[in-house]
Amino acid sequence: MTERAAVKAALKTQAVETPSWAYGNSGTRFKVFAQQGVPRDPREKLDDAAKVHEFTGVAPTVALHIPWDKVDDYAALARHAEDRGLRLGAINSNTFQDDAYRLGSVCHPDEAVRRKAVDHLLECVGIMDATGSKDLKLWFADGTNYPGQDDIRARQDRLAEALAEVYERLGDDQRMLLEYKLFEPAFYATDVPDWGTAYAHCLKLGPKAQVVVDTGHHAPGTNIEFIVATLLREEKLGGFDFNSRFYADDDLMVGAADPFQLFRIMYEVVRGGGLSGDVAFMLDQCHNVEAKIPAIIRSVMNVQEATAKALLVDRDALGAAQREGDVLGANAVLMDAFSTDVRPLLREVREEMGVDPDPMGAYARSGWAEKIVAERVGGEQAGWGA
Amino acid sequence: MTERAAVKAALKTQAVETPSWAYGNSGTRFKVFAQQGVPRDPREKLDDAAKVHEFTGVAPTVALHIPWDKVDDYAALARHAEDRGLRLGAINSNTFQDDAYRLGSVCHPDEAVRRKAVDHLLECVGIMDATGSKDLKLWFADGTNYPGQDDIRARQDRLAEALAEVYERLGDDQRMLLEYKLFEPAFYATDVPDWGTAYAHCLKLGPKAQVVVDTGHHAPGTNIEFIVATLLREEKLGGFDFNSRFYADDDLMVGAADPFQLFRIMYEVVRGGGLSGDVAFMLDQCHNVEAKIPAIIRSVMNVQEATAKALLVDRDALGAAQREGDVLGANAVLMDAFSTDVRPLLREVREEMGVDPDPMGAYARSGWAEKIVAERVGGEQAGWGA
Amino acid sequence: MTERAAVKAALKTQAVETPSWAYGNSGTRFKVFAQQGVPRDPREKLDDAAKVHEFTGVAPTVALHIPWDKVDDYAALARHAEDRGLRLGAINSNTFQDDAYRLGSVCHPDEAVRRKAVDHLLECVGIMDATGSKDLKLWFADGTNYPGQDDIRARQDRLAEALAEVYERLGDDQRMLLEYKLFEPAFYATDVPDWGTAYAHCLKLGPKAQVVVDTGHHAPGTNIEFIVATLLREEKLGGFDFNSRFYADDDLMVGAADPFQLFRIMYEVVRGGGLSGDVAFMLDQCHNVEAKIPAIIRSVMNVQEATAKALLVDRDALGAAQREGDVLGANAVLMDAFSTDVRPLLREVREEMGVDPDPMGAYARSGWAEKIVAERVGGEQAGWGA
Amino acid sequence: MTERAAVKAALKTQAVETPSWAYGNSGTRFKVFAQQGVPRDPREKLDDAAKVHEFTGVAPTVALHIPWDKVDDYAALARHAEDRGLRLGAINSNTFQDDAYRLGSVCHPDEAVRRKAVDHLLECVGIMDATGSKDLKLWFADGTNYPGQDDIRARQDRLAEALAEVYERLGDDQRMLLEYKLFEPAFYATDVPDWGTAYAHCLKLGPKAQVVVDTGHHAPGTNIEFIVATLLREEKLGGFDFNSRFYADDDLMVGAADPFQLFRIMYEVVRGGGLSGDVAFMLDQCHNVEAKIPAIIRSVMNVQEATAKALLVDRDALGAAQREGDVLGANAVLMDAFSTDVRPLLREVREEMGVDPDPMGAYARSGWAEKIVAERVGGEQAGWGA
Repeated sequence: MTERAAVKAALKTQAVETPSWAYGNSGTRFKVFAQQGVPRDPREKLDDAAKVHEFTGVAPTVALHIPWDKVDDYAALARHAEDRGLRLGAINSNTFQDDAYRLGSVCHPDEAVRRKAVDHLLECVGIMDATGSKDLKLWFADGTNYPGQDDIRARQDRLAEALAEVYERLGDDQRMLLEYKLFEPAFYATDVPDWGTAYAHCLKLGPKAQVVVDTGHHAPGTNIEFIVATLLREEKLGGFDFNSRFYADDDLMVGAADPFQLFRIMYEVVRGGGLSGDVAFMLDQCHNVEAKIPAIIRSVMNVQEATAKALLVDRDALGAAQREGDVLGANAVLMDAFSTDVRPLLREVREEMGVDPDPMGAYARSGWAEKIVAERVGGEQAGWGA
Repeated sequence: MTERAAVKAALKTQAVETPSWAYGNSGTRFKVFAQQGVPRDPREKLDDAAKVHEFTGVAPTVALHIPWDKVDDYAALARHAEDRGLRLGAINSNTFQDDAYRLGSVCHPDEAVRRKAVDHLLECVGIMDATGSKDLKLWFADGTNYPGQDDIRARQDRLAEALAEVYERLGDDQRMLLEYKLFEPAFYATDVPDWGTAYAHCLKLGPKAQVVVDTGHHAPGTNIEFIVATLLREEKLGGFDFNSRFYADDDLMVGAADPFQLFRIMYEVVRGGGLSGDVAFMLDQCHNVEAKIPAIIRSVMNVQEATAKALLVDRDALGAAQREGDVLGANAVLMDAFSTDVRPLLREVREEMGVDPDPMGAYARSGWAEKIVAERVGGEQAGWGA
Repeated sequence: MTERAAVKAALKTQAVETPSWAYGNSGTRFKVFAQQGVPRDPREKLDDAAKVHEFTGVAPTVALHIPWDKVDDYAALARHAEDRGLRLGAINSNTFQDDAYRLGSVCHPDEAVRRKAVDHLLECVGIMDATGSKDLKLWFADGTNYPGQDDIRARQDRLAEALAEVYERLGDDQRMLLEYKLFEPAFYATDVPDWGTAYAHCLKLGPKAQVVVDTGHHAPGTNIEFIVATLLREEKLGGFDFNSRFYADDDLMVGAADPFQLFRIMYEVVRGGGLSGDVAFMLDQCHNVEAKIPAIIRSVMNVQEATAKALLVDRDALGAAQREGDVLGANAVLMDAFSTDVRPLLREVREEMGVDPDPMGAYARSGWAEKIVAERVGGEQAGWGA
Repeated sequence: MTERAAVKAALKTQAVETPSWAYGNSGTRFKVFAQQGVPRDPREKLDDAAKVHEFTGVAPTVALHIPWDKVDDYAALARHAEDRGLRLGAINSNTFQDDAYRLGSVCHPDEAVRRKAVDHLLECVGIMDATGSKDLKLWFADGTNYPGQDDIRARQDRLAEALAEVYERLGDDQRMLLEYKLFEPAFYATDVPDWGTAYAHCLKLGPKAQVVVDTGHHAPGTNIEFIVATLLREEKLGGFDFNSRFYADDDLMVGAADPFQLFRIMYEVVRGGGLSGDVAFMLDQCHNVEAKIPAIIRSVMNVQEATAKALLVDRDALGAAQREGDVLGANAVLMDAFSTDVRPLLREVREEMGVDPDPMGAYARSGWAEKIVAERVGGEQAGWGA
């Protein structure tokens, strides 16, 4: 197989998971702008996700968010997905939207609130059993807004206890993916603020607990690809929540704010063997002002382009320059790959996969956007609250 | 008058304006936690604000937010305030919560949307005429989320045009206070991102246009007191929106995150003659997890404490050390004031003003919290949407 | 002329000024690693700069730094440059390396130190007269390390007075370019920390005073292209000090840390008419660990690539999408240009200019690196101290 | 024992280690301003350190930096210290100032350079044997300036190998304290950038390896006290390098930039049992513009004041408010302690210890500053290079 053929083969096996909530409305604390044609229930979200997969060929799974995607019959929902060529992906828990969680969930000072939160997490594992999902993705909004508000260390003890109970409940093929976040909605201290905290907890829990890297959850200046390389080295990288940001957790389309950073991240994934392993490549974005389905298609394409460039890095030349201490030469090898226009290559990949070479155009021509605007009238649009 | 007497005299004339919206519910994009007893209309907000003034003695005015505080009869609202010892303060415009404003308001590419936004601003000046408010506070959520989304420079032209029309409408005693903000809700470019942009616009508009400094609206590492000193030197500091932050625009209680920074800001205010001039000292906070009225009382006290410390700086000693290039000596003069426990002094000030020396305790003992929980049942709680 | 021809024509007229000090040794506070073959005097720096121009075709001028490039006969130095196809560019003042400047230069509390600093600036204008340089570039290390150390506002008064005296001395064709910097070497307050401060001073001085944007001198998260667009709109953009950074003022090769940002900056330059005007495109970098001449060649090429991409933006399509509020469409127009591999176009441009299409390779093959290592033995290497 | 007595007892046993290099000259990459009277050898540094201990009573140990403090006879140096009431503290290695280390030390791609670096570390352990020092403090300047320059992950493997060899060499009573730093002097990736990386390495090495927190080595917005609490919970907090910063690693006097943060850190130390354990409280500062000995005295006092306030927190009241979810009440308990003026308490503590209650004044009156200026003439001043 030529190198170009190998790159194409790798790109054809890539899978990007799209999040059900990105098809619904989202916004900032100032305003949620409703968009026409937005899904009104989990099935309609899957219908939209099926379009993303149809036009990209590499988005076969959809992450659910509980309770936003709560249904009576998860097996039926899974069949709805399968009928459209999709599978249900990670189950995302939600312990931040009940009034009980004002001061936290699994870290709350009140044992009854913690019990409620853990029960929800256990319920999510039950849903995984029903949907066949492999991953439980845990993001906790827990934290404090004011110094002294609660005991930082006691909250860690409570967190550890809750995680241990949920870990015990996991099946043999199931994983717990623990996400960290610097701040928001907590503004003084977040209970899992950085990869080190998530890593320390996962290490104690065992091999089924791994860290998930949301690319928007870091302090300014953080070198994310270093974290990725380190977690892969430690065999603790469970997956990504891809998005991009200029300032905080902006949740913009992945690759939109700093495509070079995305490329560097994907290079470390490739270099660390993460592309062919169990790392989950998920999107977690908010399309507040742009059309949602095309934004997701564009995001999937951005991940593909960064991956293609990462695969094109001449690693032999890179290694040689690195060993010689040739700073400019080694950097140039990396930049050569980044400067390459990989869009023609990806058009080829798509054609060979039987997908339209121009996903954005194909979606626009498909009439789906007009159809959902016309048909999805009445009912309540999906959003973060439902 | 002794120095201590002079400090006390200055503290007695201080006035902190509280914002009507801080009495209502607020939250993050993840959740607004409703609190019991929250006001259901502008009058109830004023009732709460009257308690803050009653227990602190230095919060005589209340800022309104239009349309959240829209009423049929502003004169009646003003009388409601006066009956409780209050006056209506700055009018805050809102051009971010109508569906029309998805891509901006006064900077929107569509002339019709800009017209709508400017008309709202003109309406706000009309309300000022009715309430006797002196200040129109303008914060624009305008901006773009993605590079290329709109023309950065054309948006400045549109902004300038809108501001000019509103400026023309101002009465002789009225001011326009232009606020800047680094990001949120726009994530790529904000149309008034920094003090320089606000300053440049105000300079062209004329003397009735001034800059307002929201202490949470800066990039990490920004030296806010430098901006305060510079704007005072340029005679362009119109006022403050006080709050505090650890990360972004957290809108925590002023002085909660970095009391030393608040002191340094107040020192530059004192040094630049801002305490006795036209600078408006306003709060702009979100009490998402804490009780609202006591949080506002506490915030007012925090401003008082920082002001007291700033007034206590031995400026003769400071100037002497500065002139001699005595780095440690000059810094020590400033730190001496900051290290001073000014709470006893402020208790004296309050007693001399006929106010309880312990505002937090007095409020707690007053029964007001229990009363509003009992009485404010039914109706819709005030929040950012209403 | 076709669009491609127009783009090529624009690229051929581009001029990037290289800084004499980038050819000498530099480092961090921890260590300056000396490199072999580094120039030992201003003439050898010009010899190296001539190589950069020879192999790129677009680096015809060299900025000097006084006193590092102090010579007895500036006319002779100018002739040395001309003999190698170069001209002398901006004169950079230095008011930070004399022991007198421990607490500042033009802002120092001691009038004698201020006098010394202003005299140095006036001397620099005298050198401009001798070299034919048009631009006096002013960067002040002035600031304070500790709150209270000096009076922030008085320092502004002193700064204004110094600038006014120097401005008066400028000839009709000479400009003063005022640089701002967030921090370093001052750690509490810098006397010209942001574009707003530089702008306010330049506005008062007059049309010959303009702001220079060093791309590494901002707070994290600052939108630099917004500042560029704003300064062009205000006709106050004098030029750039190009470099790149991940954290602070890292002074890495321009385009190395965030090539997308450099493209966005160059797009605003193109859009605002800055490419064909008086904006000076200067490099200001430190090649601490990499070979200096190739690093500068690479930097010039990075500026060219970003400029080429900026010129390739389909502005008609962009404007149409912007006017329609098509967020994804407008962003896609910009990204199309960025995703383009412009290296083939630039190879053509170079061939048409009579320059080797591969500047890095041509330099490597030229033997210059080996020659200077062999010949520049003995003497003292140029660095920041000399 | 009353609570006040207990607080005083704790303060009397506190020990702050001062760094030998803070007595010598330091600066930025722009300039090192020499000061009169600066020590010219390790013995003179100890003489100055003895003054700090004499006037504060709580600075009994001095950290050495090898090779800056290299001497022929370490036993004699230890006796020189003992004769002045001091002990030698942590040994700080230096693998960043030899020309060999341009591309790293223990992470360098060249095995010979790594060998050299490890040999230096082993030499440092040998010095510990001679001086009786317990702690080997490791800070590595290792990292890369450009993406691709070297293999991020391979550098971790090399780091782990080097640390393991040094760990093996440690005696039973000796520890290895691993420091992390976000950036500088490396600008793209640092090989130990965050606490997570340091923690992961220490965990694998064993109980004698612990993490040291330099308060200036974090990304903007990092919650340092959270890290302190977490490392104490994990029994991996080895010590502090205290200093303060507004922007990057400014190395200002501890407590100068954000005294509230220092208080919060010390509160977590007290709460986590770190005050009475093996945590090393070291200073690591650069007194670039201020007088060195008084700056160090002031820094020691700042640590004392923060510790006193942390000890004064009413932990019973705090715990009660936290358990009740009383956000404002819990915060108020913490703030009460912070608002307290602890200087009178510390004056008492000093008097009871037989130390002058006013260390700054006592030092000024002692004549030491004048004496060293007069006597330390000729020779070469100590600095980072020697």
